[in-house]
Amino acid sequence: MNYPGKIKKDVKSVNMTFKRGMDLEELINMSNTYYLDEDIAVIYKKPTPIAIVDASFDSHGRVITKAYFKEPSTLDYNGIYRGKYIDFDAKVTHNKTSFPLENLHQHQYEHMKNVIKHGGISFLIISMNNNIYYLDGNDIIDFISNNDRKSIPYSFIQDKGYIIEQKLRPSLDYLKVIDKIYFKGD
Amino acid sequence: MNYPGKIKKDVKSVNMTFKRGMDLEELINMSNTYYLDEDIAVIYKKPTPIAIVDASFDSHGRVITKAYFKEPSTLDYNGIYRGKYIDFDAKVTHNKTSFPLENLHQHQYEHMKNVIKHGGISFLIISMNNNIYYLDGNDIIDFISNNDRKSIPYSFIQDKGYIIEQKLRPSLDYLKVIDKIYFKGD
Repeated sequence: MNYPGKIKKDVKSVNMTFKRGMDLEELINMSNTYYLDEDIAVIYKKPTPIAIVDASFDSHGRVITKAYFKEPSTLDYNGIYRGKYIDFDAKVTHNKTSFPLENLHQHQYEHMKNVIKHGGISFLIISMNNNIYYLDGNDIIDFISNNDRKSIPYSFIQDKGYIIEQKLRPSLDYLKVIDKIYFKGD
Repeated sequence: MNYPGKIKKDVKSVNMTFKRGMDLEELINMSNTYYLDEDIAVIYKKPTPIAIVDASFDSHGRVITKAYFKEPSTLDYNGIYRGKYIDFDAKVTHNKTSFPLENLHQHQYEHMKNVIKHGGISFLIISMNNNIYYLDGNDIIDFISNNDRKSIPYSFIQDKGYIIEQKLRPSLDYLKVIDKIYFKGD
């Protein structure tokens, strides 16, 4: 399929510095659309969970008139790639020396452990120091299990993580890292 | 873990007739909580997608003041079971002779086909004629590919589907059907 608008957006994104979580989210969403269009993987961002307090009806149908954002109990993205269950989240930090673990809520961490225990692949995509890293869930669990620190040092991310290639399409080729780690030699 | 409130709810649900989609959804959510607590599977319902029109701040934080429900482009539930990606939806019909296919939106059907193509398991849980059926995605695709009908006859669901056992815990043991179809003899 031909998406002129999206390609334009890609070009813009590749050349920009990531200032907010939204930009990283956009890159991932565009990559997922590419993976879907090219029949490579089926991965979606989950809708943001909200708690509806009040709703009524207007000319467009049912309308929510009061709702709050809820803290998600899972990670934001999931789906299937090469028969494997994939489950991950995107995090942005402006901290230059370490990734603060307060970015990964306790129930998100528990979810990550559950996914891996049941045979899935879980990871974080971390935007930090002008690079976008893939950090595998096994390395995150390994770090947290063996450290009392409240943040993951940047050196650990540089050592264990993988820089995700940014290109035109897909804008963020994170599945290439999964190929490297989980489908070696295939 | 001990959930006295939930067990009570289970008992009530098992003995009730399903009048609304919500009841079936509750049974599935309770079953998923059971599967998670017992370390059997990691399956969640996705939040309902909404389009936020207006938001502001109040004493509780950011508050959505106007939003509409969006039509989901995927199925409502997904996760991992025995290393397999699972993706399904719950549908209720009061029609006694057939399941109207308008209940399964075109993009949901396409999503189901994508999931199966990539090695996942996809299906519908259908509440109909006071039974709750598991109807596998392969049978749904087979039916739709070979028929111009706008509904699946009840006889097809009885023939190809599986009645899901309703019990105390889990309230709806739909993974047992998956064991039967996909993990024969394990």
